[in-house]
Amino acid sequence: MIVRNLTDARKTRRLVETAGWNSVRLLLKDDGMGFSFHITTIYEGAELPMHYRNHLESVYCVSGEGRIEDAGTGEEFPLRPGVMYALDKHDRHILRATTEMVMACVFNPPLNGLEVHDESGAYPLQVDVV
Amino acid sequence: MIVRNLTDARKTRRLVETAGWNSVRLLLKDDGMGFSFHITTIYEGAELPMHYRNHLESVYCVSGEGRIEDAGTGEEFPLRPGVMYALDKHDRHILRATTEMVMACVFNPPLNGLEVHDESGAYPLQVDVV
Repeated sequence: MIVRNLTDARKTRRLVETAGWNSVRLLLKDDGMGFSFHITTIYEGAELPMHYRNHLESVYCVSGEGRIEDAGTGEEFPLRPGVMYALDKHDRHILRATTEMVMACVFNPPLNGLEVHDESGAYPLQVDVV
Repeated sequence: MIVRNLTDARKTRRLVETAGWNSVRLLLKDDGMGFSFHITTIYEGAELPMHYRNHLESVYCVSGEGRIEDAGTGEEFPLRPGVMYALDKHDRHILRATTEMVMACVFNPPLNGLEVHDESGAYPLQVDVV
């Protein structure tokens, strides 16, 4: 059994910080769960265009308020605690945080923890080094 | 893009209720994400021995307090908001809720939504009907 907590993980390389958001990767590929699990904080006022070409992602809003726009259709959905969105078609999307938002995120395939967003807003799919 | 919220999903068959807990399955196998995602409420005072023989599960505590016991080793860990445990070895475990707890749960393989806990506390692995 693996047990981890956000406070301790924030002091390690599990914390990734960049413009507009930070993310704590509580589970990564090497944990062998077949998915990764992250607690991500989106800063108030952030507007983040994203496109995960190589991953499916689900995002559950734990706290805060904002909006998610499907960049393919222009459709917008309000985000508040209890709302989940899933990018089941690698959907291009724009995330907007009205207030700071805390999100519980699941990625399949799992991130290995070394990815950074590339210029398209995607995480590149890492090739395992044998 | 799939967008769902807890309030609406609670009024549907996505809500499963049983002694000690209820669970809202926001993502299931047929959503094609490769995992299922559930918001599960453990009632105050519940003591739940569980053993998922067929699934890996991660559980993130969103609110409330309790304890998780590794039934194989007897080791106990406190649960509070920000703590996650992952049953990476199909660990037998006992979940105890000091207060009502709300948990964000991920299952791999995904549940199809029809499973019930069997006498061992496991979800049987469903065979697809062709």
